[in-house]
This record gives sequence, structure tokens and C-alpha cells, in this order.
Amino acid sequence: MSGEKDVRVITDEVISRLERGEIKFSEIDQAVGNRNLGTLIRRTYLERRYKVSLTSIGHTILDFEEIVGRNIENPIGAVQIPLGVAGPLKIVGENVVGEFYVPMATTEGALVASVSRGAKAVTLSGGAYSMVIKDGMTRAPLFRLPSIRKAREFVEWVKEHFEEIKRAAESTTRHGKLISIDPFIVGNNVWLRFRFTTGDAMGMNMVTIATDAACRFIEEKFPDADLIALSGNLCVDKKPNYMNVLMGRGKTVISETILKSDVVKQVLKTDVDSMIEVNNRKNLLGTSFAGGIGQNAHSANIIAAIFIATGQDVAQVVESSIAYTWMEKTKEGDLYVSVTLPSLEVGTVGGGTWLPTQREALTLLGVAGSGERPGLNAIKFAEIIAATVLAGEINLVAAIAAGHLARAHEKLGRKKM
Amino acid sequence: MSGEKDVRVITDEVISRLERGEIKFSEIDQAVGNRNLGTLIRRTYLERRYKVSLTSIGHTILDFEEIVGRNIENPIGAVQIPLGVAGPLKIVGENVVGEFYVPMATTEGALVASVSRGAKAVTLSGGAYSMVIKDGMTRAPLFRLPSIRKAREFVEWVKEHFEEIKRAAESTTRHGKLISIDPFIVGNNVWLRFRFTTGDAMGMNMVTIATDAACRFIEEKFPDADLIALSGNLCVDKKPNYMNVLMGRGKTVISETILKSDVVKQVLKTDVDSMIEVNNRKNLLGTSFAGGIGQNAHSANIIAAIFIATGQDVAQVVESSIAYTWMEKTKEGDLYVSVTLPSLEVGTVGGGTWLPTQREALTLLGVAGSGERPGLNAIKFAEIIAATVLAGEINLVAAIAAGHLARAHEKLGRKKM
Amino acid sequence: MSGEKDVRVITDEVISRLERGEIKFSEIDQAVGNRNLGTLIRRTYLERRYKVSLTSIGHTILDFEEIVGRNIENPIGAVQIPLGVAGPLKIVGENVVGEFYVPMATTEGALVASVSRGAKAVTLSGGAYSMVIKDGMTRAPLFRLPSIRKAREFVEWVKEHFEEIKRAAESTTRHGKLISIDPFIVGNNVWLRFRFTTGDAMGMNMVTIATDAACRFIEEKFPDADLIALSGNLCVDKKPNYMNVLMGRGKTVISETILKSDVVKQVLKTDVDSMIEVNNRKNLLGTSFAGGIGQNAHSANIIAAIFIATGQDVAQVVESSIAYTWMEKTKEGDLYVSVTLPSLEVGTVGGGTWLPTQREALTLLGVAGSGERPGLNAIKFAEIIAATVLAGEINLVAAIAAGHLARAHEKLGRKKM
Amino acid sequence: MSGEKDVRVITDEVISRLERGEIKFSEIDQAVGNRNLGTLIRRTYLERRYKVSLTSIGHTILDFEEIVGRNIENPIGAVQIPLGVAGPLKIVGENVVGEFYVPMATTEGALVASVSRGAKAVTLSGGAYSMVIKDGMTRAPLFRLPSIRKAREFVEWVKEHFEEIKRAAESTTRHGKLISIDPFIVGNNVWLRFRFTTGDAMGMNMVTIATDAACRFIEEKFPDADLIALSGNLCVDKKPNYMNVLMGRGKTVISETILKSDVVKQVLKTDVDSMIEVNNRKNLLGTSFAGGIGQNAHSANIIAAIFIATGQDVAQVVESSIAYTWMEKTKEGDLYVSVTLPSLEVGTVGGGTWLPTQREALTLLGVAGSGERPGLNAIKFAEIIAATVLAGEINLVAAIAAGHLARAHEKLGRKKM
Repeated sequence: MSGEKDVRVITDEVISRLERGEIKFSEIDQAVGNRNLGTLIRRTYLERRYKVSLTSIGHTILDFEEIVGRNIENPIGAVQIPLGVAGPLKIVGENVVGEFYVPMATTEGALVASVSRGAKAVTLSGGAYSMVIKDGMTRAPLFRLPSIRKAREFVEWVKEHFEEIKRAAESTTRHGKLISIDPFIVGNNVWLRFRFTTGDAMGMNMVTIATDAACRFIEEKFPDADLIALSGNLCVDKKPNYMNVLMGRGKTVISETILKSDVVKQVLKTDVDSMIEVNNRKNLLGTSFAGGIGQNAHSANIIAAIFIATGQDVAQVVESSIAYTWMEKTKEGDLYVSVTLPSLEVGTVGGGTWLPTQREALTLLGVAGSGERPGLNAIKFAEIIAATVLAGEINLVAAIAAGHLARAHEKLGRKKM
Repeated sequence: MSGEKDVRVITDEVISRLERGEIKFSEIDQAVGNRNLGTLIRRTYLERRYKVSLTSIGHTILDFEEIVGRNIENPIGAVQIPLGVAGPLKIVGENVVGEFYVPMATTEGALVASVSRGAKAVTLSGGAYSMVIKDGMTRAPLFRLPSIRKAREFVEWVKEHFEEIKRAAESTTRHGKLISIDPFIVGNNVWLRFRFTTGDAMGMNMVTIATDAACRFIEEKFPDADLIALSGNLCVDKKPNYMNVLMGRGKTVISETILKSDVVKQVLKTDVDSMIEVNNRKNLLGTSFAGGIGQNAHSANIIAAIFIATGQDVAQVVESSIAYTWMEKTKEGDLYVSVTLPSLEVGTVGGGTWLPTQREALTLLGVAGSGERPGLNAIKFAEIIAATVLAGEINLVAAIAAGHLARAHEKLGRKKM
Repeated sequence: MSGEKDVRVITDEVISRLERGEIKFSEIDQAVGNRNLGTLIRRTYLERRYKVSLTSIGHTILDFEEIVGRNIENPIGAVQIPLGVAGPLKIVGENVVGEFYVPMATTEGALVASVSRGAKAVTLSGGAYSMVIKDGMTRAPLFRLPSIRKAREFVEWVKEHFEEIKRAAESTTRHGKLISIDPFIVGNNVWLRFRFTTGDAMGMNMVTIATDAACRFIEEKFPDADLIALSGNLCVDKKPNYMNVLMGRGKTVISETILKSDVVKQVLKTDVDSMIEVNNRKNLLGTSFAGGIGQNAHSANIIAAIFIATGQDVAQVVESSIAYTWMEKTKEGDLYVSVTLPSLEVGTVGGGTWLPTQREALTLLGVAGSGERPGLNAIKFAEIIAATVLAGEINLVAAIAAGHLARAHEKLGRKKM
Repeated sequence: MSGEKDVRVITDEVISRLERGEIKFSEIDQAVGNRNLGTLIRRTYLERRYKVSLTSIGHTILDFEEIVGRNIENPIGAVQIPLGVAGPLKIVGENVVGEFYVPMATTEGALVASVSRGAKAVTLSGGAYSMVIKDGMTRAPLFRLPSIRKAREFVEWVKEHFEEIKRAAESTTRHGKLISIDPFIVGNNVWLRFRFTTGDAMGMNMVTIATDAACRFIEEKFPDADLIALSGNLCVDKKPNYMNVLMGRGKTVISETILKSDVVKQVLKTDVDSMIEVNNRKNLLGTSFAGGIGQNAHSANIIAAIFIATGQDVAQVVESSIAYTWMEKTKEGDLYVSVTLPSLEVGTVGGGTWLPTQREALTLLGVAGSGERPGLNAIKFAEIIAATVLAGEINLVAAIAAGHLARAHEKLGRKKM
């Protein structure tokens, strides 16, 4: 009781000091020595200043004592996003076998239902097979050299001193292992694209720190190379691009299935040829004519929903969602479908994965935390995501083929207005 | 008390029926006649089946009676994401004037702090000016014609019957107004790119339904045109692409500021020339060499965090985050900076914007719900987002210029491991 | 005789003056008052300086008195390129009907034969239908404005003063008609994409001059707009790009045919399904995964050979060759094929079209010089080119489908080694 | 005399047979046993059929007895294209040192003069430095596998059997050496991108034949892999693409220079800052916003003109002309300029390089035929081309900076109308 009173008193006092400019907004936590209290004060300050109520934002299980500095600054509470599960989805993959209910946090009506229907078709056809074919997180610092002659000399030097650079990089991390450095020269600009395995972490921070250490070593030993940017946009992080398509980033993962023609008919209410026609005209021709990267119907929907649910870096949806959906008829008249994701950036440790709800979502998939062997959980997780994208693609292409799209939206989406 | 007991009994019973296959997972709500109870049962079922705890996911203020079918299916609870505020950010825009604390939901440490520092530099320099230069949500159905002759005839016909098509489209919506139909012909494939204003809604569902009605009219009147896909991927929704860059989707919005050279020095700890050099080499040369769309440092970070916080369609981060960051020195030696977002898809009504925490986040910005005049709130919101991206770009480019990036990550990010 | 002696004497003398630095290489024509003689002297000078023989280059029917300044500077003679004809190719187009032998200047063995085989298949199936669906040459000057506010004001001003700008532009040309100005704003940069019809000329020079006049008017009336570049690379000239794909440049032209399944079998030695499979996997999936623009097998081969033969601007092969090849099975089991060329930049007057051999090549197609009505010949020419690309695509896809490619190259290409 | 009469008689006779359908157009050479005569007959036939004169085309030094089947089929004569020389251009490169007059075959007035002015600026500043940083011709066959599991197994198998595959490939060629095979998997599609060094030849035919042999070996040993296309469009040949930008094709070559600020002023009539501004706004920002690949002003102009002059495969201008032009100010206030060409496909033997005028053009540059050591001439040639592109870029950017472009076109281009 008296605690509550104190809280009110402290809050009023800190807000007064804020208003008088004696303290800055970013200094509140420090001033009161408690981040949960700081969160309350910030929220209250904003409520008063802007004459709004932020009560719902304040209702949260998050303990900001733990979170501030790791995942957020200047918190005022939390956002709550509905979490549904799509499934059951049978996966008979390289590292995961089982039936999964995939957690998807979204506010787009019909999405979870849509993926679930695709999952049903996949499951009835025997499941999806998923496989990670490439793995590695990248960071590409950009150096300025005095001339192209020096640029090439530099690139040669880097090749020759790979082991030393590796040592410098890995001195900063237990989990990151430098596996390659790919150089790119454009005039007097040199990018070195570092690629690391990062265990079960998505690894961008790990890799940034390790690359920074490597760059310090490089600059010291090769003084003609001036580091312009630790990230030179050839990494490529959080921008759509062909570098990641062709050279991979994070997991390069594929999932495939063969849908029985009668499943296409009974579950998806369309037929094999119609689905192939939609995929070819819309995804393969349409996307490319529009100057698009990837060829798919809506992989970003699935990626975004799973990323939010499981504490991934949501800005990476940009390139993680680049996907190539391929459909063809088998000799038996069934439908072969695959989705290829060249650049799926995911982790089961680090980032937002340890937050309470996110961690539970990963637990539901059996991939929370570190894997039996380092990296295994992240790989399993990638396999599950790819299979879920596969289900999502199957359903939307089928729905379009069946002319169902708009009607589904009318039914489920109308309520929103 | 007895209510709780009942819940347990019902839960056990429904789970038994699920296990015996007498009822399907997707039929639970219907079976128990209450979506909150259904949510509990689904969660409990998964907890038992997979031997996990989903307690945190169960702690939520969401009322699924309201939400299911509008925003989610098969819910099991909610995800909670830390919500911080970046600011204060001064905007002296076309439609918004004031100091803002911008809500960002993220799990990436350092992000809110980073944007806040950029905001400080902008604010000290007099603020950002933002402007929406184009507005309209699109949907591009794809038709198959018997020949290219018919394809052109079809396109001519559409032009001549624009008013009738408009009437058919608008019969489905109060807020959507059809403003143009851009045709694209590739062989016997014809895409009609419908563009609507959609008031304060992002409008994709509205536009899909309206386009569907238009297509029914078209197919009836021009029977040679077979609708293959209501969305033919020239819309373009949720895929990175140049169509939206060149022709816009949602809001095309720009924000600019002139950073005083001494602000660059004192707040950002670097100088004007160094920032320009980083922008030119990394963003303009680097991104493009990598086959990237857009030229920026990390606009997706800001867009994703605001989208999650405010109930936007997060999968649209893909194209909404495409941004062109431009920097140059003014005659006075200051730094002119602009960011151009060709395809920012946002709304203040519809989608997830009405959910409790998301709505509060919009309220904090003064843009929740419908605007004074239709569409004004969505435009204001776009102006604020662009200014926030501007702040984010300024800070990251400055941090790189100052070589601060890695050290910041070390300090703030280290805790995560 | 004495003429020849004089020539030798003059040549020696001029070369001596060149060697003594009394005259510059670029001043030779002026010094001797005759461009054919100048050509001889330049050639002789280079022969002596570099101790080489340039006799073949000297053998030419070109009269440099006419050509220098229009088509070339510093000439030393001419290059001779073998000219073959592909055909007969039946076209039943919008503006051209008949059987054509299409002139192709190339040094790539097998190319003309390859296109001829495709032409045979097309002809036996009833011919190709070609149609120009858009027409207009563009130039996009780039202006710097003081702010985005001014940028939009500028764009509004341009819209309002279109008629005056049109008058200024058209004052420089009899044939060019300004049809639209499309604005693009990126920060404080504004591009105005001028689009003109240009009669039978490809029209780039015409358009450049007219746009220059328009820009002078604009800069005078709207002094805040600083012209940075008369061509701001949104034209887009001689670079591969999506602007031209989506908005067209020159002729946007399509050609289609339906190949009878027995023609596929007998002439092309393969079958309909195999050709579709190759087109889908190689052209639609392969090109796009490689980050390619367009989806075709080798349209550039045909475009380049015709461009060289007919005096087009060969550097424009870059974007003129962007093509989308689409194949599908008809209900009757035949093969529908189309090629769509969004940006084919061609003319029948101006540029190199008046040179003797090039003009004859155009004459062979019945499209030399101005058309009956302005622009008709250029349109006819575009229709013929598109049909030839169609034939070329058909043959190569068929050859690949039949596994013939390598064997054809072995047979025809082996001789080269 | 009697010979001439005979020719007329034979011509009439063959044409009669053609008209009666007793012989096909493609069988003329065979019928008369002489390809020069065949050429005459084809030309005469077309002249009569289409009532045109092809006299100029008939005037040629080419001996079709030698050329047919190597470089052309169905020839009717030759096209003559004006050949100018740009220079003198000083190059102080890795493998070439000297002053060059670069042969350019073009019909675009002002082009040679423009490059010459750029060359002057380069030469006065001490010359250009050029360097080839990567070398290798590629061909990427496309295989269909039964599943992604098999696809990865296949890729592993290829890695393990590299030496055997190499042996199979190299059995077909003396000059081609297989240096790597890069695999790309998209669903059940596998591309193997073969990279060969090809001596002084551009090497596409060599590589196609060698890859075909490799594929036969592969298909025999790994029967689950079905070869769909010997070229699967990841090569990438004759289409604009990012694969070649990022991984190279042919020569990856860079040229750079530092232009003295007073040379910029006196020769180019502009200043360093203005040129940088044009390059940044037009080439770096403009091209990329337009969805362009590369960032340059007009590299295709130079590449096309040199390719025609020297017997290169002109359709390869498409990707060979992709260039990144970079400009920055040195500490001394001079202008650093570089051009980077990731994918310059050139040769000094094979293709059209042995034709009389083309060979002379190569001789003028000192790079005709095979180099002292295999491949050296082709590398030298690439260095010269890159330096010439550099000169061309410098001049055009300078001309734009000086507002000279339009006036130059008016002066030189006006004559054309």
C-alpha cells in the first residue's frame, strides 16, 4: 500500500523534474534505480503530456529489470499480439520429424486458417521434407584503398592471412566460427564479406563484434586499408537483394512435398493444372515483370508471423521472406511443390528468443534454446519454417486457382470494417 | 469457483474428444461456444500434447470473443513484445507539427536508443519536414486473353468502361474510391492495376473486395477475359519490387532535414563529409552492387518496430521499408538529408489497429482511428514514420562514420549472450 | 595518277606535321579540306606509327565527306560484317503482312540458321502476329530543388504549364510531339520523364534537343529548379532497367504464334510439353533467380544482329533486348508462344539508317525511310523484329528441349577453332 | 567475261528453281558448290523478289567460302560500318603500356569525339591504370532431380567427382581449363555453373562444348540427374543480371585515373565537385531508382562500338556494358575516377576476330590473335576497353556537368535531320 503511494510520489516528482528540464527522458531509469518503475514513470509522463491512456500497454508480464539494454530502451510497457497456431503440419524432414502446430503472431484475419488448410493438404499427402543446404551469418565491412592496385594487393593479403584474421575474429566469441571471407572490389572500394557459423543464434551481433575485431587487426596490419563502414551493405542485412539470393545468408533452406491429386481436389477444391497455371503466371511471370525479387505468393505473411511469435529480428523479414515457389506435375499426375528460401535468418537463442512468450512459442516447436549439438535447434527451426511457408504457398495458390480468395476475405475480413 | 471447475471439466472433455478424433482442432470454439474458453482449451491441449508450459502466452488482456475471425484463428493467447519510445522528435511537417515520442516494439537492443539519438540531432536542427506525395492502395488482377489482339482490345474496353467498373468496385465499400486502372500486357496475360484511395485504412482487404467486384463485372461484360488470379503479383504486396518504387503503393512519403554542422559534431560525434562518404559508398554504391532495392542503412528496423507497435500488417515491412537515403552538403556546410519511401503501407483504422495496445500506441501519436477528414490520420502517421526513419538513418550513418557501431553493439548487445 | 602522287605527298606532309606536333590528330580533315583524304591520312599515320596494315579497313564504299560529323569522327575506314538473312518468315501482323527475309549482321555461326528454323516453324503454323502497344521516346532531365516542398511545387507547376513546356520542346523539331511528362521525386531530386512520339526516327537526339529547349524554358520560369543533368538516368538509355520494362521506351511490341504440335515434332524435333518445361525452368525460374531482367533464351542475339544490319544504335541492344518469352499449351495441344519487348528502340530514318548498306537492309524489309504516315515504317519494323525474336526464341528453346544445342554448336562452331 | 555470263545463267537458273520450289533458299550454296556464288544468287533472288537494290551490300571484301558456317549462314553480302579511332589514350596498365587509338565502329555522331576528349583528359593526367581481377567464361547447365534430397546428394557427388568431370570437359578443348563448378539449388532444380579459363578466346562455344561433354559424363554416372538445358540461364549469357555482377563472367576489369583539377577545368570545362555531383545524383541515385543494373553514364556506347570494330559477340554488350562508375575528390582536390566492369566478355581469337577488318582493328591495338602466353592478349584487350570506358564516362559526366550535352548534340547531331 505504502509502496503504491511511494510510487505515485516518486512518479510525480520525476515528472516534475522532467518538465523542468532537470532530467532527461533517457535518464529516468538511472534516476529511480529501477527499470520497472522507470517504465511506469515514462508511461505516466506520456499519458499526462499527450492526454492519453496507455493502460493496456502497461499490462504486461515483462520484467524490464531484465530486458532494458538487452532488447529495448525507453520502454513504456508491451504490445500484445494475438498468437494462433497453424496446423497440424506433418514434417518428415532431415532433422525434424513430427506433427507441428506452428505459432503465428498476426493481426491479419484468415492467415492462420489459410496456412492450416495448406498444412492439412501437406499432411494428408504424407508431409513435407525440409533441408538446410547452406548456413552462415555474414557481415561485410567496406574499406577504402588508395588505388585498385592496392585493392587487389589487399585482397591477396587477406587471403594469405585468413588464419590470423580468423583468430582475431573468433577471439570475441565462443560460438562464432569464421568459415570464409569473400572479397568484392569496385574501384578503390573493397568489401570483405565475412561468413560465420553462429551455433543456434541468428548471430548478427556476434558476427558484427567478431568482424569488428577482425577489422581492427586488418587495419593495424594493412594500414593502407581504411575502414569506412563495418557494415558496407553487401552483408546484406534488412534490405531486399540478390547477394543473399545467390550467396545465401543465415539458413538456405528448401521444403518440398508431393500433393496427391485427390487431396488437391478434396481439400483444396481445385486441380493440379490450375495451380501450376497460377504459379507460373502470377509468381514466375508476374513477380519478375514487376521487378520483384523472389517468386512466391505470400511467403512474407508466414515468415513475419513466425518471426514475431518467436522473438526473431522482425526487420529481417525483408530478406528472409524472399522465396521461390516451384510447382510441376509429376508423371503420376500429382503436384510437386517446393519453396526455396535462400536467406532465412533465424535463431533459437539470443535476441528476443528468451522473452517469456517468445520462448514458449519456441518450446512448442521443440526448438527453444541450444540444440543437442550447437546449431541443431536453429536448423530444425528453419526446416519447420520452410515447411510452413510451403503450406502457406500451397493454400494461397490453390485458393486463387479456385477463385476463393476474395470470398474468403469477404467472409473473414468483413467483420473488420 | 464452480466456474473454474467447469472450465477444467470442459477442457478435459474437449481434449479427450480431440484425442479420439471426434472433433477437430479448428472446431473447438464452435464446440464450446466461447472463443476465450476455446483459446484456453487449445493452449491446454498443446501443453499436454507437447509437454510444455504456455503460461506466459496465456497471460493476456486480449478478448478473443472479439478478435477471432477479425485478426486471428486458432488462438492460444498472445505474444508480448517490449515497447519503447524513441524521441522526442520534432516534426514540422505538412500535416503534423509537434514533438513526438514514437512507439517502437522491438527486441533488438540499442535500436530505440539509436533512433532517439538521431531524433535529438534532428530536433536540435529544427525538426524534420515530411510530406506524402502520392497515396493509393493497389490490387492487380491477372487475366488470360485468347490473343494479344484481344488483350489490347480488352485494355481499350477497360479504359472506355472505367466509370462502370468504378461503380462496380465502389459498390462494395464506403471508403474506397477507385482512382485509376493501369494495364500491363505480357503476351496473352493482362494485369489491371487498380488504385484506390482508402481513407484512413491501409486498405488491402477493402481493395481486394472492391477489385473482386470489378472483376466480376468485367468478366461478365468481356467474356474473353478469364480471371486467373485476383492478385497477379503486380500489385505488389509483400514482395520487394520496382513496380512499387516507380508507381507507388500506399503512401509515397518523403522526410528531410538540414542538420547543423555543429549538431553533427556535438550530438553525432562525427562530421558532415564523413557522413556523406558513408552514405555514398555504403548505401548508394554498396546496396546497388549487391543487387539491392532501395539505398539505405536500416530503414526496415524502424518500419518493423513501428508496424508491430501500431497494428500494421507486418509482412508489408518488405516493401514499406524500401527507402532512398540521400545526403549532401549545403552551401553553408550543413548536412541535407532526406529519406524517400515510395511504398509505405499504413492505416490507422482496420487490421490490428483496433487492438488495445496497438490502438494506444496510435493514440500516443494522435493518429488513432479516423482523421478529421478521411485519410488525414493515415497521412499524418506516414509523415511521422518517415521522420522517424530519417532519424534512424541519420544516427546509423553517423555511428558508422564515427566507427561507433561495433562499440555500441558490444556495450548494449553483450548482455544478450 | 598525278592525283595519287599528290595524295602520297600530302599524306607524308601531314604525317610529318602530326609527328612534329604542329597539328593534332583531330584536325586532319580540316587541314586537308577533304574527309576522305583525311581518312586515308589517319589510317596511314596509324599504319606507320603502329607498324600495322589497315588495308581491309580502307576498302569501303563509304563517302566520309557525307558521314563525318553525322555518324563518326576520326574515321579510318569501315568495318565489314557478314550479312545473312533469316527466313522466310511469315508475318500476319497489325501493319505488316508478308513473307520476310530478315537481314542479320553477325559473326556468330549458327545464329541465322537457327532463326531460320524457328521462322520455318512459325511460317508453317500460319505466321506470327505482331503488335506495337505503346510508342514513345523518353528523356528524363534531373533537377535539384531546395527542398521537398519546392520539389512538389515544381512538379505541380510543370503539370500546370504542360502546354507551354510542350511548345518550347516542339519548337526544336518537326517530328517530335511531346505526349507526357512523368515526374519522380527522390528527396530534393526531381526527374521529369519526357515522352515524345518521334515519327519514323528512333528519336533520341530529337528528344534530347527538344527536352533541352524545354529545360531552358523551365529553368527560366521556375528558377528554383537547377538542371543537374539533361539525362538523369531515368530515361533510361543504354542501361538495363525496370523503368523501361514497366513504362516502356521506344516501341513496346509483342509477337505471338500458335505452333501446331506436329510442326513442333517435325520441324523442331521435340514436343510441346518439353518446350514449355524448358521455358519455365530456364527462362522464367532461371533468369529470375540469377537476378536477371527479362525472361528469355537469347533475344539479344536477334536484336543485335538486326540492329547492326539496319543502322540502329547498337548500344541500345542493352534494353531493347529485354524480352519476356511465354509458352503455354492450348486446349488443342498446340504451343502458344509470345515474346513481349517492352523497350525496343528503333527507327527507319536518322542515325545509321541512311548509310548505304544499312539502308538497303531496311529496303529489303520494305521499311526504309519515312512511312506512308509518319511513324508507320518504324512501327512495321518493330513488328518484324518482334516476330524474328519470336522465331529465335522458339528455335533455341526447341533446340535445348531436343538436346540439340551442343551438337549444333559442335557442327557449326568447331570450324572456328 | 564468259565467267560473268555463266554466273548470270546459273543465277537465273537457280532462281527459277527456287521459285518453282525445287530447291530451298538454304540449299543454294550446296546446289552451286560455291558460297560466294551462292551469296550472289541469294542477293539477286531477294532483289528480284522484293524489287530492291542490294548493290552496296554486295560490295565486300569478305570471302564467303571461308566464312559461311563459321560466322554466318544465308549470307547476301556485308554491312559496312564507319570506323573511327578515339585517342590518343595513355594507358599505364598492368599488362599494357602505351598510347592507344581505340577503334570504334559506330553510327552515332559525336561518340568518338566525346571519348577522345575524355582520353585527352586522362592522358594529360598521366594515363589510366587498368587491371583484370577475375577471369573465366561460364556455362550453367540445368538439371532436374527427383527430390531436394537427391539434389543435394547430386551436388555433393559433383564436388567429389570434380577431377573426373574436369577431365571429361577438357577432353574437348586444348585451351579451356575448368576451374570451378558452383552449384545452385532451387527446389528440385540444380544448376552447375561451370567456370573455365579459355585462353585468348571469349570462349563461349568452347565452354558450351566442354560443358556438354561434362554433362554427358555426369548424366551417365548420376542417372537421377536429368539435363533439362545445357544453358539454364544462370550462366548468364546475353541477359542483364546480378549473377555476373557478383560472380563475374569473362573478365572482371577495373580502370582508374586521377584527373588533375586543372585538367578538369581546362580540358573538360567544368570542376571536380560538379562532376562528382552529377555522378552521385545521376549514376548512383538515378540508375538505381530506375531499377537499373550498373551505375554509369553510357558505358554501353563504348563497349558496343569496340565490340563491333573488333569482331566480338555484340549481343554480349548487354552484360559486358554493366559498369560501376565511381568518382571522389582526393585530398589534393583532384578527381579520382574508376570504372568497374564485372562481366566483360572478350576475345582476340575465335568468333568474328579473324575477319579481315576486325582483325586489323585488333592489330591496331597490338592484341590480335594469341598472346605471348595464352590469354595475355585477351587480358590486354580488356584493360584497353576498360580504360576507354573510363575516358567515355569522364567525358560524358563532364559534359553534363558543364551543361554541354545538348549543345554538343545540336552541333554534331543537327546535320542528321
